[in-house]
Amino acid sequence: MPAGPKLRAPRLDTPFHIALVEPEIPPNTGAVARTCAATGSPLHLVGELGFRIDEQSVRRAGLDYWHLVDLRRHESFEAFLEAEPGRRLHLFTANTDRSYLDADFQPGDVLVFGRESVGLPQSILERFPDRAVAIPTLGEVRSLNLSNAVAIALYEALRQVDALATEKLSMG
Amino acid sequence: MPAGPKLRAPRLDTPFHIALVEPEIPPNTGAVARTCAATGSPLHLVGELGFRIDEQSVRRAGLDYWHLVDLRRHESFEAFLEAEPGRRLHLFTANTDRSYLDADFQPGDVLVFGRESVGLPQSILERFPDRAVAIPTLGEVRSLNLSNAVAIALYEALRQVDALATEKLSMG
Repeated sequence: MPAGPKLRAPRLDTPFHIALVEPEIPPNTGAVARTCAATGSPLHLVGELGFRIDEQSVRRAGLDYWHLVDLRRHESFEAFLEAEPGRRLHLFTANTDRSYLDADFQPGDVLVFGRESVGLPQSILERFPDRAVAIPTLGEVRSLNLSNAVAIALYEALRQVDALATEKLSMG
Repeated sequence: MPAGPKLRAPRLDTPFHIALVEPEIPPNTGAVARTCAATGSPLHLVGELGFRIDEQSVRRAGLDYWHLVDLRRHESFEAFLEAEPGRRLHLFTANTDRSYLDADFQPGDVLVFGRESVGLPQSILERFPDRAVAIPTLGEVRSLNLSNAVAIALYEALRQVDALATEKLSMG
């Protein structure tokens, strides 16, 4: 394939952050890491992980984009909150009637996602009851793959703050 | 986790279609199938596949959502065009300076994606030069995972045609 233009927007001075709480499936976290690397978004891994992230394990899992991500590890959600005081949270869950399209995304916000199997714990949702948002579905299947949900949400956030605006885009 | 509301929009009478041309990596196609199932979008698999899609192979690969997708198989891009005459195409490629946000998505359109390794073949891009669109990136990594690109593009298309509009959403 001939080398062609690559559509690039400038990095945000204040990027969005992604937080995965207790992710279970390595390739999902790997795909999220790639999306974070492609958007300059720091990635917070919070609580117990369903896999190892030492260098050897990451290499073995083929996580090619891992070293290009601003990765931050927190032992618990409490530790995450203490490390990132004052950040606005958007808690992605199926258990709300508020659409992500109605969320007011602002640079610096954290988009927070729970486990593949059960989503975010009730304790977190109850602590921030006005911060829950959902991605609607239209078909038989009522949930999306974790990395796809992150990608949809993050690109909507970037769109809302004009970070993808055409006049800012460059090629090369 | 207690059963809560699930944010659902009605299916589109005329859904968007997804076409994957010569996809190589089974879990990517599996994740795309899940997104298609979650949005009522027919999925076209076009040309040589890097994997088998007989029932046994699909079960072994853990593609849980496979049977919930309106799956259509085409031996070649030519056969796909003949089977779907008159459909508007959106060709996703890195080799264009036109953003997907400026695409005019309409129900019934097909969002077309190429191979994970090299994207869509030049022959297809040259045949429909005004149909190419790109998803901008902002960071070091200049491409997205295939299933994430599909998810970002499809949800932007659904947003543009108001298929996710809050007044249409129901819970249950």
